[in-house]
Amino acid sequence: MWGGRFAAKPDTVMQAINASIGVDKRLWREDIEGSKAHAAMLAACGIITRDDEAKIQAGLDDIADDIAEGRFVFDEALEDIHLNIEARLTDKIGEPGRRLHTARSRNDQVATDFKLWTARACDAAGEAVSALQVVLLDRADEHADWVMPGFTHLQTAMPITLGHHLLAYVEMLDRDAMRLAAAGSMARDGCPLGAAALAGTGFPIDRGMTAKALGFDGPAGNSLDAVSSRDFALQAVSALAISAVHLSRLAEEIVLWTSPQFGFARLSDAWSTGSSIMPQKRNPDAAELIRAKASRIAADFQALAGLMKALPLAYAKDLQEDKTLTFQAFDSFDLCTAALRGMMETITFHRAPMAAAADKGFSTATELADWLVREQAVAFRDAHHIVGACVKRAESLGLSTLSAMPLAEFAAIDPRISAEAVAQLAVDKAVEARDSLGGTAPKRVREAIARWRAALGAMDDDEA
Amino acid sequence: MWGGRFAAKPDTVMQAINASIGVDKRLWREDIEGSKAHAAMLAACGIITRDDEAKIQAGLDDIADDIAEGRFVFDEALEDIHLNIEARLTDKIGEPGRRLHTARSRNDQVATDFKLWTARACDAAGEAVSALQVVLLDRADEHADWVMPGFTHLQTAMPITLGHHLLAYVEMLDRDAMRLAAAGSMARDGCPLGAAALAGTGFPIDRGMTAKALGFDGPAGNSLDAVSSRDFALQAVSALAISAVHLSRLAEEIVLWTSPQFGFARLSDAWSTGSSIMPQKRNPDAAELIRAKASRIAADFQALAGLMKALPLAYAKDLQEDKTLTFQAFDSFDLCTAALRGMMETITFHRAPMAAAADKGFSTATELADWLVREQAVAFRDAHHIVGACVKRAESLGLSTLSAMPLAEFAAIDPRISAEAVAQLAVDKAVEARDSLGGTAPKRVREAIARWRAALGAMDDDEA
Amino acid sequence: MWGGRFAAKPDTVMQAINASIGVDKRLWREDIEGSKAHAAMLAACGIITRDDEAKIQAGLDDIADDIAEGRFVFDEALEDIHLNIEARLTDKIGEPGRRLHTARSRNDQVATDFKLWTARACDAAGEAVSALQVVLLDRADEHADWVMPGFTHLQTAMPITLGHHLLAYVEMLDRDAMRLAAAGSMARDGCPLGAAALAGTGFPIDRGMTAKALGFDGPAGNSLDAVSSRDFALQAVSALAISAVHLSRLAEEIVLWTSPQFGFARLSDAWSTGSSIMPQKRNPDAAELIRAKASRIAADFQALAGLMKALPLAYAKDLQEDKTLTFQAFDSFDLCTAALRGMMETITFHRAPMAAAADKGFSTATELADWLVREQAVAFRDAHHIVGACVKRAESLGLSTLSAMPLAEFAAIDPRISAEAVAQLAVDKAVEARDSLGGTAPKRVREAIARWRAALGAMDDDEA
Amino acid sequence: MWGGRFAAKPDTVMQAINASIGVDKRLWREDIEGSKAHAAMLAACGIITRDDEAKIQAGLDDIADDIAEGRFVFDEALEDIHLNIEARLTDKIGEPGRRLHTARSRNDQVATDFKLWTARACDAAGEAVSALQVVLLDRADEHADWVMPGFTHLQTAMPITLGHHLLAYVEMLDRDAMRLAAAGSMARDGCPLGAAALAGTGFPIDRGMTAKALGFDGPAGNSLDAVSSRDFALQAVSALAISAVHLSRLAEEIVLWTSPQFGFARLSDAWSTGSSIMPQKRNPDAAELIRAKASRIAADFQALAGLMKALPLAYAKDLQEDKTLTFQAFDSFDLCTAALRGMMETITFHRAPMAAAADKGFSTATELADWLVREQAVAFRDAHHIVGACVKRAESLGLSTLSAMPLAEFAAIDPRISAEAVAQLAVDKAVEARDSLGGTAPKRVREAIARWRAALGAMDDDEA
Repeated sequence: MWGGRFAAKPDTVMQAINASIGVDKRLWREDIEGSKAHAAMLAACGIITRDDEAKIQAGLDDIADDIAEGRFVFDEALEDIHLNIEARLTDKIGEPGRRLHTARSRNDQVATDFKLWTARACDAAGEAVSALQVVLLDRADEHADWVMPGFTHLQTAMPITLGHHLLAYVEMLDRDAMRLAAAGSMARDGCPLGAAALAGTGFPIDRGMTAKALGFDGPAGNSLDAVSSRDFALQAVSALAISAVHLSRLAEEIVLWTSPQFGFARLSDAWSTGSSIMPQKRNPDAAELIRAKASRIAADFQALAGLMKALPLAYAKDLQEDKTLTFQAFDSFDLCTAALRGMMETITFHRAPMAAAADKGFSTATELADWLVREQAVAFRDAHHIVGACVKRAESLGLSTLSAMPLAEFAAIDPRISAEAVAQLAVDKAVEARDSLGGTAPKRVREAIARWRAALGAMDDDEA
Repeated sequence: MWGGRFAAKPDTVMQAINASIGVDKRLWREDIEGSKAHAAMLAACGIITRDDEAKIQAGLDDIADDIAEGRFVFDEALEDIHLNIEARLTDKIGEPGRRLHTARSRNDQVATDFKLWTARACDAAGEAVSALQVVLLDRADEHADWVMPGFTHLQTAMPITLGHHLLAYVEMLDRDAMRLAAAGSMARDGCPLGAAALAGTGFPIDRGMTAKALGFDGPAGNSLDAVSSRDFALQAVSALAISAVHLSRLAEEIVLWTSPQFGFARLSDAWSTGSSIMPQKRNPDAAELIRAKASRIAADFQALAGLMKALPLAYAKDLQEDKTLTFQAFDSFDLCTAALRGMMETITFHRAPMAAAADKGFSTATELADWLVREQAVAFRDAHHIVGACVKRAESLGLSTLSAMPLAEFAAIDPRISAEAVAQLAVDKAVEARDSLGGTAPKRVREAIARWRAALGAMDDDEA
Repeated sequence: MWGGRFAAKPDTVMQAINASIGVDKRLWREDIEGSKAHAAMLAACGIITRDDEAKIQAGLDDIADDIAEGRFVFDEALEDIHLNIEARLTDKIGEPGRRLHTARSRNDQVATDFKLWTARACDAAGEAVSALQVVLLDRADEHADWVMPGFTHLQTAMPITLGHHLLAYVEMLDRDAMRLAAAGSMARDGCPLGAAALAGTGFPIDRGMTAKALGFDGPAGNSLDAVSSRDFALQAVSALAISAVHLSRLAEEIVLWTSPQFGFARLSDAWSTGSSIMPQKRNPDAAELIRAKASRIAADFQALAGLMKALPLAYAKDLQEDKTLTFQAFDSFDLCTAALRGMMETITFHRAPMAAAADKGFSTATELADWLVREQAVAFRDAHHIVGACVKRAESLGLSTLSAMPLAEFAAIDPRISAEAVAQLAVDKAVEARDSLGGTAPKRVREAIARWRAALGAMDDDEA
Repeated sequence: MWGGRFAAKPDTVMQAINASIGVDKRLWREDIEGSKAHAAMLAACGIITRDDEAKIQAGLDDIADDIAEGRFVFDEALEDIHLNIEARLTDKIGEPGRRLHTARSRNDQVATDFKLWTARACDAAGEAVSALQVVLLDRADEHADWVMPGFTHLQTAMPITLGHHLLAYVEMLDRDAMRLAAAGSMARDGCPLGAAALAGTGFPIDRGMTAKALGFDGPAGNSLDAVSSRDFALQAVSALAISAVHLSRLAEEIVLWTSPQFGFARLSDAWSTGSSIMPQKRNPDAAELIRAKASRIAADFQALAGLMKALPLAYAKDLQEDKTLTFQAFDSFDLCTAALRGMMETITFHRAPMAAAADKGFSTATELADWLVREQAVAFRDAHHIVGACVKRAESLGLSTLSAMPLAEFAAIDPRISAEAVAQLAVDKAVEARDSLGGTAPKRVREAIARWRAALGAMDDDEA
């Protein structure tokens, strides 16, 4: 803020680099809530009169309406959202407006606003994650026993079920939701209001009252920490970055699955784009952008950690950039979850190509090894060696699956391999066999779906 | 792993890029624990005999002793810790060793080892953070009422107490410890063992038994997720990165405070270094390295998020690099906490220069503004304006503190400013006045210290 | 782009994530130049008629005027700048507008636009760096012999001159300008136009003609590379990130030097900000923001590298985010150079406090060691040891400079230390003595200034 | 370094965090070369005697032999490579060893060593890049006219040739080599030796002589800059990071092409790995690790920029970490280039599956649009629309290529479409048609190969 003792006006470049109103106007709702809580407390503590408070409350409500309805003109010369609102308040109500800033500072004010905003953004992001879980659960249910190749190293490893594959993301997203909830709680931990510039205040304020009114778990315990720390934002952005990694993995799979080489799935028209020159293209643009945005959110964390690194206490202007980075991380994340939900709701899977692919590449070879261990008491490492020889032989015969190889060829390698053993090599049978807890067998998948329905349903009830 | 069906040997560059034993041998303890739990379960479920199990257990115990005592020679040709130990086991006990890998894969094995390692590393990091809190608490106690300048923008803002300043870090570290504890819990959430390569297994295993034996909260619910996800590592490294930001801020303050321009403190000899050419130097090398390591830990998070981004399920070799990054992040962090503890235990603060600095720069000007609000019912914004004029006048008189300006000068600006008002401008008085909850007044600092002693003590009791 | 074969409209979220017009409209000038060059070439090669070309050229000129004067309304439904302009062109001139996109694609079009934009942005950034060099050179000239402490580890190491210190940044910025120039050249290396979607075109185009018209050094040699690569952007952003590190170091020094503890300098009013609650503050906000922006630019590089990593050829939608990141890196950089120039032009240095600080901390101890080597043929390591003992003795006597210690005390440590030796310890003398090439002696500083004036002046002449 | 005036020994944690010998011993060769050049100059300038110099030279040569042959035992208590070598030298030759450090400091010494090391590492990395170019050129030559699908968004866009695709990487790598060469030049720009601690020296040294002896282009022009700057390392690591992005893209394509869904290629046994449980797997581990290492190298840049950010001049200990980061970036890069060369030398491509895939997905639809423009003077946008309708019709008929659709169907959509037009839709024809400069037509590919052979050959001649 300029004024008072400065003789010269700030340079226009200075104003450009310094003004944050273009970014922090997004905190208007929280700023007004914070000021209303502060005014109520000042009056309750006898620091301003009830009459002044009433005028402040009414003025702030007016301003909230003005902003909500787009009538408020933000002024860059007033730097930030706090001064824009306070100046307007004084325009509207006069003298009492000049009393509002008693026993607070922009430092505790912005920290309070930003914590509140972040807490709510974490809630919303968590809800978006849960909504995506529900979509994935529905699609897993529909495809609980559809066989597809399970890949490691993008090589066909073993047949699995599509339901099982989709449920893997339900698990990841559940941990993401937990991290977002924890980040939200951390943002509501310790209300900065009343920390003033950095040292507290000599006015007889009631910090518990404002903390409670704003939904914090209590007042921050140290005024220097309250105005200087942004680990709540770092935690929130790290939770977004980690979840975005998960979202990007599913996005990558959409890109692969819808490629003609895979042909496992087709995006709906609403989620495909064409080409200006190749009319036949169906491009998974949204999935690709999710990959890119995952990279950006991780970099937002990086930038935020980088600007906080080695900053001495207390507030420094470097912190002004925290909001841009946090806002853009949440915005990117919102688009990612919404787009992934849209794509997954409307994607069509193709059963036959998936099943055919699942059979390629000797994908059930391990079943034969397991059979040798189970039925012939062969040590696992020996069984592995025997099956390796079978695969080599099949390849040299130009076969692409083990089940296509005559029994005699198996027997030449190891006479213990019987027709029953070879029967294990069918894809459906292999999938059914892997019925350990958390395994890919359709019955296990359906159990998991039921368990998740209950868990996510219960969550809905709690919220209702 | 090479062997079986491959005709040619891997290229030596291939071996160099592929081998992980140089890194993952650090998981030996967890690998052996995991194998012991797995063998016990296989026997309990009748998959191997009790006799085989006994030999496996004894063999693994032998290997553990060999490694602990430095007798184990790791072989790069055996790629990783898992194959090194299994090969040695078979050397020692023969056939039963070849049965151990039944119903598991390296994919679930390494995920299990790595989660266990990470969980323990989070515990240790959390303890290091708590130990640093205790040191800071002790130093805060000794300096609860020492006056120093509180800075914003590295400009003197208001006088504060050193105890209050140090307590700000106790608050930050408490949240760090919470994040590390949450990361540890997440690493113990869902034991991967039994997920096998990616699809589960057809052997009738008891995953609950191994999960319990290894201290997990239960088996992982989806086998694909169990072998493919590393969000537990991302969460742990993000918790380290955030805490390292806090450590780097205190490190920066050590650098500033011990510089001759500040002269607020002096590091002990044990934590200072000299110069090869300037014999008079006392360099805060460890503090500087903490800054640098904070930057590196954030980059470790970045690298880890970058390599996971857009990886299709399930396991891919990219994940091999996860351990290097996670290990080095924990190693950096351990050095940072240990070094900061060492420095803070032995640093000497200099009372007089801090107090003198606290009085510079019109640091108590706000007290006069607050007095006008409180005693003369001036609106805050008007009081702010009046005090700005006083500061300008004092500067033009060549004074460096407001309290040195004659009362008449104040009165010329605003006749309401009395001798009593000017008395508010003394540094000690200003510090005492800021006695709102969380404020810098010595009595508030002592209350906070007592509260923290109870909290950290209670924690010790819980642990005992 | 939607249309043609798609039955359903894109989801609104899809449109939000997919549309780039909000970002890429900034390429309008380059897009129009590219289209004009393309149309001229199509006509020259007989692919469109001269009459069609004339209409296209006129239409594009009209559109350029409309955009420059703010009359053009961008339409998000038309996705990007290319389609916005092409659609408007067809509105204006009809049929010929529908012929413009012959023998090109959006892929080569955007790559061309973006390379051109980046090349020009590198030019402008390089000029901003040179302008800052000139300011620093002027200030170095004014303060060529002002003595200040030279720090290592923020400890006083040796006295240096302020001119010498400022010239260090002139050197850094020179390398920055070289990197920016190289990045600009790389962006002008290989015009993508005519690469079409990815495979080239069958129309008999003249790629040399368009490349030349647009100021490229020639056409790109491989059409897949031309549309898929963004290393020119990565190189430009890395050059910005490296330069921003340098800018942030000077910014940090501004923060330190203007702090009351240092008191070496004072920012002008135009480049200081005040506080809402502490009327006495003069905050170096712009310097702090430069630090923060340096962190952000490095993260922009990170995000860009992250989104390009492991993308198969050719164009993928992930690349859409390249522009946002590159634009914001240049915008941040522009503000940093402009702000630093403004601050350095108007900062006032304080000679006395700098000189006094230079004498603290036994800063000239090395001079005594060097004297022993030079005049008494003591081996350097022995001389170092002797001077260490002198410093220890002076400290124990409560002295803060070596020159204040009686000669007898020196002689007690080593009788070779004479009055002449002690005379070396004066700060001015020490500064003058360090007259090796590149050293801090005022005469060396003035030589360097003359050399730089010639170099930067010559540069101006070249440009004129 | 401890010693001299310090009463207490450093804490063991301090020693662990402070010692760099484990990392910087890698600079031994450069350190000895630097010391030899320094000693020769000191003698030439009469600062030490010729006799002392001879002993120093012989002693340093001995030490070089000892290190090269593994006989040198590094001592952590001596902190770093500089003190290790100097201490050994004094052990070997006595008094003259104690004179070597005259007129220099560890600050200029390490900067010199590190610049030299980086310059050479850039040379070697550039050679590795060129060697990979040659391999790619050979493989492009062998497959100049093999048809494969060209992808955008991983959707089949148009047929291209494999030779053309591989040449895209030759182009990228050429720019990478240019960047590495520029980074090498920058590292050889300005020899720091003689900058001493930060201010130059009073000894009458000849900096031009040492700079020349060590292969620098001259002495650094400012002593503060010389010891404080690390932009040469940032530039080198950024060049590696950008090139690693390119390497990771080819690595990703190897992963895709060798997956069973693509089936375009097969890695040799030497560059494949198997699975411990799935004997049929051929995993492209090295390609996956290249992806991961690309992420790590970018993070190394990030960490390096992060630790340099906002460091005041001159040397600070944060810089110690610069070497770890730079060394590991080069090590990662070396493995990436070597592995990619190994894989590309021995990979086998499968012509039939590639050609078949090239025909899928209406890949030649654009040819029809271009025919309409060329032969029927249809405006491009209209042609695009007509072809879109054809594709839609073909899809509704269950056809997967346009060429399989009866002419009557085309004619029903637009009567201008003739049999000749439909003939354009053959894959081979389409590839041949795209013969613009840089296009995919085999004749263009062969021209480009010849041009590259000449360019890379000329380079070899220059080097010979």
